[in-house]
Amino acid sequence: VYYLVGVDLGGTKIATALTDTDCQILKYDAVRTEAVRGPEAIIDQMVSEIRRVIEDLPKESVLGIGVACAGLIEPSTGKVLYSPNLDWRDLPLADMIARRLDYPIYVGNDVNMAALGELHYGAGIGKRQIVCVFVGTGIGGGIVIDGHLYEGANGFAGEIGHVTIDWDGPDCPSGNAGCWEGFASGTAMQRRTLAALDRGEPSMLAEMLHGDPSKMRVELIAEAAAKGDALARRIIAETGELLGAGCANLVNILNPERIILGGGVIRGVPELVDMVDAVVRRRALSDAVAGLDVVRARFGREAGVIGAAVLAKLAGKP
Amino acid sequence: VYYLVGVDLGGTKIATALTDTDCQILKYDAVRTEAVRGPEAIIDQMVSEIRRVIEDLPKESVLGIGVACAGLIEPSTGKVLYSPNLDWRDLPLADMIARRLDYPIYVGNDVNMAALGELHYGAGIGKRQIVCVFVGTGIGGGIVIDGHLYEGANGFAGEIGHVTIDWDGPDCPSGNAGCWEGFASGTAMQRRTLAALDRGEPSMLAEMLHGDPSKMRVELIAEAAAKGDALARRIIAETGELLGAGCANLVNILNPERIILGGGVIRGVPELVDMVDAVVRRRALSDAVAGLDVVRARFGREAGVIGAAVLAKLAGKP
Repeated sequence: VYYLVGVDLGGTKIATALTDTDCQILKYDAVRTEAVRGPEAIIDQMVSEIRRVIEDLPKESVLGIGVACAGLIEPSTGKVLYSPNLDWRDLPLADMIARRLDYPIYVGNDVNMAALGELHYGAGIGKRQIVCVFVGTGIGGGIVIDGHLYEGANGFAGEIGHVTIDWDGPDCPSGNAGCWEGFASGTAMQRRTLAALDRGEPSMLAEMLHGDPSKMRVELIAEAAAKGDALARRIIAETGELLGAGCANLVNILNPERIILGGGVIRGVPELVDMVDAVVRRRALSDAVAGLDVVRARFGREAGVIGAAVLAKLAGKP
Repeated sequence: VYYLVGVDLGGTKIATALTDTDCQILKYDAVRTEAVRGPEAIIDQMVSEIRRVIEDLPKESVLGIGVACAGLIEPSTGKVLYSPNLDWRDLPLADMIARRLDYPIYVGNDVNMAALGELHYGAGIGKRQIVCVFVGTGIGGGIVIDGHLYEGANGFAGEIGHVTIDWDGPDCPSGNAGCWEGFASGTAMQRRTLAALDRGEPSMLAEMLHGDPSKMRVELIAEAAAKGDALARRIIAETGELLGAGCANLVNILNPERIILGGGVIRGVPELVDMVDAVVRRRALSDAVAGLDVVRARFGREAGVIGAAVLAKLAGKP
């Protein structure tokens, strides 16, 4: 029997899974990232998590370890070029893990890994041209071309959150202006809701927050909408339109067979999937949408560890 | 010695070329499309043009005939699904030509064919990830992934002119709103210039038009700009910004090695290439632009016939 290990390394959480060779999770563990202690300490923490899930397994039964890491990763070397969440720059992550653990180590961008998981074991099975759109604090993308994850000329393809949908709009730290994620991410939903409350728009959300704006969450907006709150409903409808506008752009450029929507905002407000589908059908070219469907991602929070295990599986193949 | 034939079939012109097997033009001929006479007459016209360029060649020396056609083409069948320029719908173009001419016939979208020509014999030689952006009356695109033209799930990829850069902007016949080509095409440049003249902005263009707004051309704007006309310069600078904003979107999505800019507007205002380069470097993610260059297309009006010959060459290969 053989096994794979998938790790999802983020700024707040390190999740580690042991999987079988079909990337099904057998063991799972998550700990808080001790981000303030710097890279060496975080890597030690991650390595002890990995050791925990593989503890009593014969060495040769573990085929490889995949790590999904937030940020810009150089896929060929497993180097973290820049990770804002971890505050890392030019860190040879794969090498640093390999110094501590004698297994094949592979590192990929966390969003790309989530797309890889959907492609091989999730909502993308059997499809060859896919765009995965993960909506959370930002918007990340994974592009599948001819059945393979497309990484671009040097590994940075799929930064779909930084597509402008308002060329003269507000500046984004990315260098661009009017970025899609500034309009349609969970962060944008929360910001727009709080701004409406500040303007005095009536909403049960004012009470639900108990006077603490930092308690604003997408789940709370969804809860208020379910109870008929007009502001919450309007914010969700606007988000559907804005998400759909950005997805229509991807359809007109890439003509995919399927759009897979995932991430915390979609989990919190699943009806966004149908809203996006309707907007894409209205805005994108009719011939390009004729063969398209818009579906929800199969995997939730576990998407990263599963995708990382898929990376290790694919990379380990001759 | 072997030959190829490339045809560029547009709403106003049918251009036909005989090329060698390196797709170099040996003979070239162009006639006005007799568009009012309907598809059978146009195809007859095209076939007599093809016969003219291959007249005295031994049959077996002509390896194939490629046709670049404006509109939505189904690449696998050579069917024209929709061509607004020719006012055709669901026309089996490849079959209709094959009934008249006993050679292998291949049909592709004209913009994709121009990209194919650049990839194999033009500004894209040696590059594997390319985005071609052709700016004329609209904006068309050709996407090259891993050294091959990417056509999407059913042949409609690359409709980059219909990416919204203003999600709440003016409606476009495509179904989308705020489409890039509505801001940054030659048509948009002419429209904005005429609107400024209407508002009474001082410009030598008012005189250059001799009172006839239908004489407005991108070349005229370029001429006025070269003479220091403030309005013409502003229109060109704005177009550089708008073209660059849309190209930055493509860079953040696709992370290409090279952007190739072509089409009538780029031929008329070549300084747009440097302007777009600067805007892309400012707006797109710095890691994605690190390995990118922005260059001018090699081919001009002949791009279609050359690309069509390339299609015939590639398709004819075992």
